[in-house]
Amino acid sequence: MDTKHPRTRRPIEPIFKSVSTGSAGSVPGSPIYIGDRAPTEAAISLIQYSQSEISFVTPENIEEVFAMVEDGMVNWVNINGLADQDALKRLGGFFRLDALTIEDLLNTEHRPKIEDFDHYLFIITKMLTRRLDNSIEYEQVSIILTQNAVLTIQETPGDCFGPVRERLRTGAGRLRRTGPGFLAYALMDVIVDNYFSVLEWLGSRLEEFEATSASVRAAPGFMGGLQDVKSDLNRFRRMIWPVRETVSVLLHSESRLLEESINPFLRDLLENTIQVIEALESYRESASGIQEVYLSSVSNRMNEVMKVLTVISTIFMPLTFIAGVYGMNFRHMPELEHPLAYPIVMGLMLVIALGMVIFFKRKKWF
Amino acid sequence: MDTKHPRTRRPIEPIFKSVSTGSAGSVPGSPIYIGDRAPTEAAISLIQYSQSEISFVTPENIEEVFAMVEDGMVNWVNINGLADQDALKRLGGFFRLDALTIEDLLNTEHRPKIEDFDHYLFIITKMLTRRLDNSIEYEQVSIILTQNAVLTIQETPGDCFGPVRERLRTGAGRLRRTGPGFLAYALMDVIVDNYFSVLEWLGSRLEEFEATSASVRAAPGFMGGLQDVKSDLNRFRRMIWPVRETVSVLLHSESRLLEESINPFLRDLLENTIQVIEALESYRESASGIQEVYLSSVSNRMNEVMKVLTVISTIFMPLTFIAGVYGMNFRHMPELEHPLAYPIVMGLMLVIALGMVIFFKRKKWF
Amino acid sequence: MDTKHPRTRRPIEPIFKSVSTGSAGSVPGSPIYIGDRAPTEAAISLIQYSQSEISFVTPENIEEVFAMVEDGMVNWVNINGLADQDALKRLGGFFRLDALTIEDLLNTEHRPKIEDFDHYLFIITKMLTRRLDNSIEYEQVSIILTQNAVLTIQETPGDCFGPVRERLRTGAGRLRRTGPGFLAYALMDVIVDNYFSVLEWLGSRLEEFEATSASVRAAPGFMGGLQDVKSDLNRFRRMIWPVRETVSVLLHSESRLLEESINPFLRDLLENTIQVIEALESYRESASGIQEVYLSSVSNRMNEVMKVLTVISTIFMPLTFIAGVYGMNFRHMPELEHPLAYPIVMGLMLVIALGMVIFFKRKKWF
Amino acid sequence: MDTKHPRTRRPIEPIFKSVSTGSAGSVPGSPIYIGDRAPTEAAISLIQYSQSEISFVTPENIEEVFAMVEDGMVNWVNINGLADQDALKRLGGFFRLDALTIEDLLNTEHRPKIEDFDHYLFIITKMLTRRLDNSIEYEQVSIILTQNAVLTIQETPGDCFGPVRERLRTGAGRLRRTGPGFLAYALMDVIVDNYFSVLEWLGSRLEEFEATSASVRAAPGFMGGLQDVKSDLNRFRRMIWPVRETVSVLLHSESRLLEESINPFLRDLLENTIQVIEALESYRESASGIQEVYLSSVSNRMNEVMKVLTVISTIFMPLTFIAGVYGMNFRHMPELEHPLAYPIVMGLMLVIALGMVIFFKRKKWF
Amino acid sequence: MDTKHPRTRRPIEPIFKSVSTGSAGSVPGSPIYIGDRAPTEAAISLIQYSQSEISFVTPENIEEVFAMVEDGMVNWVNINGLADQDALKRLGGFFRLDALTIEDLLNTEHRPKIEDFDHYLFIITKMLTRRLDNSIEYEQVSIILTQNAVLTIQETPGDCFGPVRERLRTGAGRLRRTGPGFLAYALMDVIVDNYFSVLEWLGSRLEEFEATSASVRAAPGFMGGLQDVKSDLNRFRRMIWPVRETVSVLLHSESRLLEESINPFLRDLLENTIQVIEALESYRESASGIQEVYLSSVSNRMNEVMKVLTVISTIFMPLTFIAGVYGMNFRHMPELEHPLAYPIVMGLMLVIALGMVIFFKRKKWF
Repeated sequence: MDTKHPRTRRPIEPIFKSVSTGSAGSVPGSPIYIGDRAPTEAAISLIQYSQSEISFVTPENIEEVFAMVEDGMVNWVNINGLADQDALKRLGGFFRLDALTIEDLLNTEHRPKIEDFDHYLFIITKMLTRRLDNSIEYEQVSIILTQNAVLTIQETPGDCFGPVRERLRTGAGRLRRTGPGFLAYALMDVIVDNYFSVLEWLGSRLEEFEATSASVRAAPGFMGGLQDVKSDLNRFRRMIWPVRETVSVLLHSESRLLEESINPFLRDLLENTIQVIEALESYRESASGIQEVYLSSVSNRMNEVMKVLTVISTIFMPLTFIAGVYGMNFRHMPELEHPLAYPIVMGLMLVIALGMVIFFKRKKWF
Repeated sequence: MDTKHPRTRRPIEPIFKSVSTGSAGSVPGSPIYIGDRAPTEAAISLIQYSQSEISFVTPENIEEVFAMVEDGMVNWVNINGLADQDALKRLGGFFRLDALTIEDLLNTEHRPKIEDFDHYLFIITKMLTRRLDNSIEYEQVSIILTQNAVLTIQETPGDCFGPVRERLRTGAGRLRRTGPGFLAYALMDVIVDNYFSVLEWLGSRLEEFEATSASVRAAPGFMGGLQDVKSDLNRFRRMIWPVRETVSVLLHSESRLLEESINPFLRDLLENTIQVIEALESYRESASGIQEVYLSSVSNRMNEVMKVLTVISTIFMPLTFIAGVYGMNFRHMPELEHPLAYPIVMGLMLVIALGMVIFFKRKKWF
Repeated sequence: MDTKHPRTRRPIEPIFKSVSTGSAGSVPGSPIYIGDRAPTEAAISLIQYSQSEISFVTPENIEEVFAMVEDGMVNWVNINGLADQDALKRLGGFFRLDALTIEDLLNTEHRPKIEDFDHYLFIITKMLTRRLDNSIEYEQVSIILTQNAVLTIQETPGDCFGPVRERLRTGAGRLRRTGPGFLAYALMDVIVDNYFSVLEWLGSRLEEFEATSASVRAAPGFMGGLQDVKSDLNRFRRMIWPVRETVSVLLHSESRLLEESINPFLRDLLENTIQVIEALESYRESASGIQEVYLSSVSNRMNEVMKVLTVISTIFMPLTFIAGVYGMNFRHMPELEHPLAYPIVMGLMLVIALGMVIFFKRKKWF
Repeated sequence: MDTKHPRTRRPIEPIFKSVSTGSAGSVPGSPIYIGDRAPTEAAISLIQYSQSEISFVTPENIEEVFAMVEDGMVNWVNINGLADQDALKRLGGFFRLDALTIEDLLNTEHRPKIEDFDHYLFIITKMLTRRLDNSIEYEQVSIILTQNAVLTIQETPGDCFGPVRERLRTGAGRLRRTGPGFLAYALMDVIVDNYFSVLEWLGSRLEEFEATSASVRAAPGFMGGLQDVKSDLNRFRRMIWPVRETVSVLLHSESRLLEESINPFLRDLLENTIQVIEALESYRESASGIQEVYLSSVSNRMNEVMKVLTVISTIFMPLTFIAGVYGMNFRHMPELEHPLAYPIVMGLMLVIALGMVIFFKRKKWF
Repeated sequence: MDTKHPRTRRPIEPIFKSVSTGSAGSVPGSPIYIGDRAPTEAAISLIQYSQSEISFVTPENIEEVFAMVEDGMVNWVNINGLADQDALKRLGGFFRLDALTIEDLLNTEHRPKIEDFDHYLFIITKMLTRRLDNSIEYEQVSIILTQNAVLTIQETPGDCFGPVRERLRTGAGRLRRTGPGFLAYALMDVIVDNYFSVLEWLGSRLEEFEATSASVRAAPGFMGGLQDVKSDLNRFRRMIWPVRETVSVLLHSESRLLEESINPFLRDLLENTIQVIEALESYRESASGIQEVYLSSVSNRMNEVMKVLTVISTIFMPLTFIAGVYGMNFRHMPELEHPLAYPIVMGLMLVIALGMVIFFKRKKWF
């Protein structure tokens, strides 16, 4: 069954299937890693900046970070990988994070959300990447915003924060001039911007399906492949709704960690998120439309096949019958003796065949 | 595959796909042109009027405009084309527009919205034009209403503001007697009025499909073409909803830039927008209905084809069999010798054929 | 293509397609007739009554009306036809109506609504009539309720107000005892009552479709006709929703033009409107159900057709093959010589045929 | 067309089609009987009880009732049949009922509702009975709760109040100890309890359809019968929603006619009503599922039929052709002379037939 | 009809079909067992713990429990089985429970709910177990939280509370340190955790269907089995919604029986419940997608079958006709005499057959 649309078989699963306070029956309140992937070794990076200076450090362990964090600077601690749970607990101790926050960090299947712990804001969101095998990777990113620091905790190495790091390095724009709240916004912003590229890719897959939806040959894998795109859209949609809620809460929060001046930017962010949602709705409608065109073209082809069969049968059955009649072995069949009988019968057959052809032409069957 | 309904293939895309604070990773807060089209060179026009006088000017550059803007007059500055971003920034400076407003102006894929910046109202809306290739052009129009001026910024030359200019010229009606708020309303009004002509055109396309939906020959492109109209309707609908919201906010805004006396007109405008929405819903239902009629008529035709095949087979198969029997070469087949055998068998065949015909007539198969 | 269900082809159109402040680009605020029909010459009638006396007059022109209107009486001015726009403007002047009210009067495609202008209430509603060609006529009726008068303005002659006139004439019931508010209610009431007869007619059309939905012959026009009823139902539904809103606003309005004692009657009116809506929903569900039954019965018939074909082919193909075998001209076919060969082969054929028949009987194919 | 699922043909009609203030054009405010059935002669019964005593009376006419009604007792007046409208008016006079209440009583197609007239509560609800012809009877029951009496007015004799009468007679439970409010609750309660038995019956009808939905033979009436159940469910659902609303209003009403202590019971009643609604939703989903299974099994059977036809044709067409070839009368056909030609050709045919059979076996066609 | 997807036939029934105040007509306020199962003999267990000590007891009867309940300890009384209704009433008396609470306990088909009786909280929820016959068991669990005790009443022996008992025994975590409120939370938590394992199992059933949805052979039971999973999903969904409501009420309740410190845990619990709901929605969409793929693949196979039939017929019908022609017995058929006629005709047939094959290859029919 070779097909133009190879299926990216994936298990049917809830997006956020985990149990945040431990797997069934575990002691609530004790941090446990939850997720599909084996947790990656933690790799730590620290960026410290003020308007005038900036430094990029790659500390060996979490204690080095504690030693380096400075007031008066914005301290961005990024941790890739959740394997070293002790380090994360010590991190929680240093920044006075709630025990439940550490648990939620470790649960990589948590729903996007925001929580305001007065002295810090805790945001869980998802970073989307297009994998090589045509599936979408959902990586959880936790952002913790404190008075003087932004902590970002990711599941695996590799992220979409490059542009932010670049803007920090070059010192362009508002980023270096403003506090950690703006950095947190900027990170959220590139994450949402990144959704658009995944969106675009989903759009191009849909276009491929649309291009072949009415074509001559019914590809056997068409419906399955289209269904895969649809379930990607559904998954994406279920993921983006809580993100939208999170941004909306952020926009209307009264936290003193967010300067008033960030609000227009957050409003922009919210608008972008809404645009992603609208695009997803639009794609879902397109997918339904493509499916309808496809099913209708399959049924049209069926019609064509049946017409060919019917035309052929209708022409040859009477002819074969006539030939059969004059193949009978009755002794007394006077026509058989007539010298012109054969050409006359052949002519009659021709007339019948032509009549049928004209009849079908009139009925516009071909 | 010649078809009556040529498809107007267009990419599947979100309506407002852009990222308003710059493309992914760009510095938020720096104006950048976002859009599909290459930005057009800006062409500026200025209309100044009071109840007693009016002047139409086409300034060379934006600075000329600044020099001419007068208090005590209504100053309508119209700019076609977004290429000269510096001029737009200087315009922003002159009218004390927010930096984010300039950015939003330049992002031609912004969602319709209204923002109240106290000393000015900023409205983004969309102007619809029917293109020659049967697609609909969505052109963004930004309207900025200040104390003494209305700024309109369009993507490309060509607009639907002709009637407003004409009414200004002739001095008829309330337009010349009232302030810039009424001008802004009048512009919104012609934009929404214009939606009706696009609506009407979509309606006439639907009517074409309806006319052929039950016709004899299944046009292969029918479903695809109908799907195109449906996705045009969806796109339109997603566009009009935020417009409706915008007008509603305008109606209930307490901005001192809008005189109280405009309210009945704004209410009319809102009603018109609702009528467009209702018409779109109505069209969507029609499109579904047309599709159902079409699919049902395809399946009816299939039924017809199958009946022809079955009738022909059912009549000729028994006859051919009988002819085959008397074509067998057994030595001892007494019937073959009988002088009347041939006419009797032929008569029998006739009886069978007639019986079948009557049977199918009774079953109302033809 | 003769069909039991002749389609009442009508253009696909929005119900209230008009632009209430004039067609695109016209001067807002200037009354212009908008509608499909050529406006009819105005015919005026005036009914004046108090509890003790009543008079029916047919004035020649609007000025006569002005002369006759009396305080202390209820003055019901009915105008059929919108052609004389000047008269309507003078009417507006006499009763101190807003300019926008006159405009809305003239726009016969306005959405049902109610507006409270303090010294008068302005109601737009729709009167439904079943036309002879199986379509539904939507006639706009504007009702204006002032301190001492009720104005009703209709598009064309002919209305459903007969019963109200009759009750006024006979003096039965509350109508003559109460003020103009009750008259306005009574007029709304007969309009809504009239919806029920249109409903009933739509119901009887649906019943016709239901009666034939599962019948033997697939009428080619069935789906189209059913679709027509469905789109009538949709149109009706879109019309009735704003009517419901209007009545609800009327019920909760605090206007001093409506006596407190009318409220129970208005509540009844609202309940009736809700019943119309519920009936429409119920009809829509029925229509969908009928369609499903129809489509399923079409496919059942297809099944029947295919079975007949298959049974015939399966019986006669093997027989014809056997006859063909013994029609071969091999020199050495010993069976051919055997005196009993012919009856044996014929018997074999009979056994095969009977076997097939029994097989299909067992499979319950017929 | 004999079918397992006889259709219970019923007219398509709105549930509550009536016009509560009289038929179109009648004088509003004058009581008129509205309904499908001829109104039944009124049969009156009176039950008077206090905690210590109880009496069951069957008065001849309404005046006898008036004479017997006692303060200090709970007086339950039950009237079956609406024919004697004068008696109902006198009843209204005695208990100081509003004229509109009497009208609503007489309109047997009224929507369930509750109205609080301060000195009495007026409840309209519906009693459901399963009729013998497989349809559901909707009988209107009006319950009027006053300071010392409960009036129940039914359309026809026969009700579901037996258990309440029994509990009154035996004096068990709270009923005899409490006032008329509790009696009204108890009546509502048995009415809603009764819905469950109708529900159960609908469920068992659905189960019958489910049992045959995938069976071998496509019953021609299947879809129609299922559609009947679906429209029963829809009708029931439209009826129960206003009942739910009524109970909810009752629960939150502040009427002094309802003792505080009834509230937990009313909450229970509300929960029961919600359970009926949920069960109906569940049934609707089941009905859709059954329909999908049925349609899919019809199409599977079609597939089977087509496969039989194709297998037969594919086996016998080539064989018949070969036999036809050796039945040709060419003089020079050397094979014909060969002594082994006949068995060889027959063997060849056998090989072809077996090859075909193996081919289809491999393709899993049978 | 052997099938890979054996149906787990179950009656169509409302989830919570019971009538909480007794079956129709019973005396409201008297506790009666309601349910499908015969009520099981009650088995009582008592766990008493404080931070320092813990004891597990299995009392013989309910009076032993009363004697043992101690203030200053958390007393968890668990009762399996509802047969001993007297004991339950005495339990109600001891803990001062409302009579309606006891009734609700006994009604095993009650909707999940929470009621705050000031001195105790009453929660009804459902425990889900996957039965061996592929159906899901819904067991009702009532949780009553008082000042010093938690009562849990289950329908049958066997529960999912093992992990809680284990954590109590080992003394790990917060459970032993905190009061009865936390125990109630922990029980709710394991119940909801348990939903995930049922979810997972439903997911794996869906995956099986997905794996075969596009496979070659249309399993006759496919649709029925998928429908079973869908109705399990619907049932689960209707059950979980009131659970979600219950948890939400618990979270926002101001009851003094719940310490403030439980709130983050309750919020977690609510999030888990929402995740179950989202997963169910996701599964429902998957099920619809699988169904569409299946139906489309059925129709694709039909297409294949029809093509085979058409190709075979189109090739052999003309050939058989030609053979028939030369089998006619006309005396004057000059071709018959020609020595090369036979090979020429056979060649002609080959050419026709090859032409047909090439034609269909071009049309991509195979």
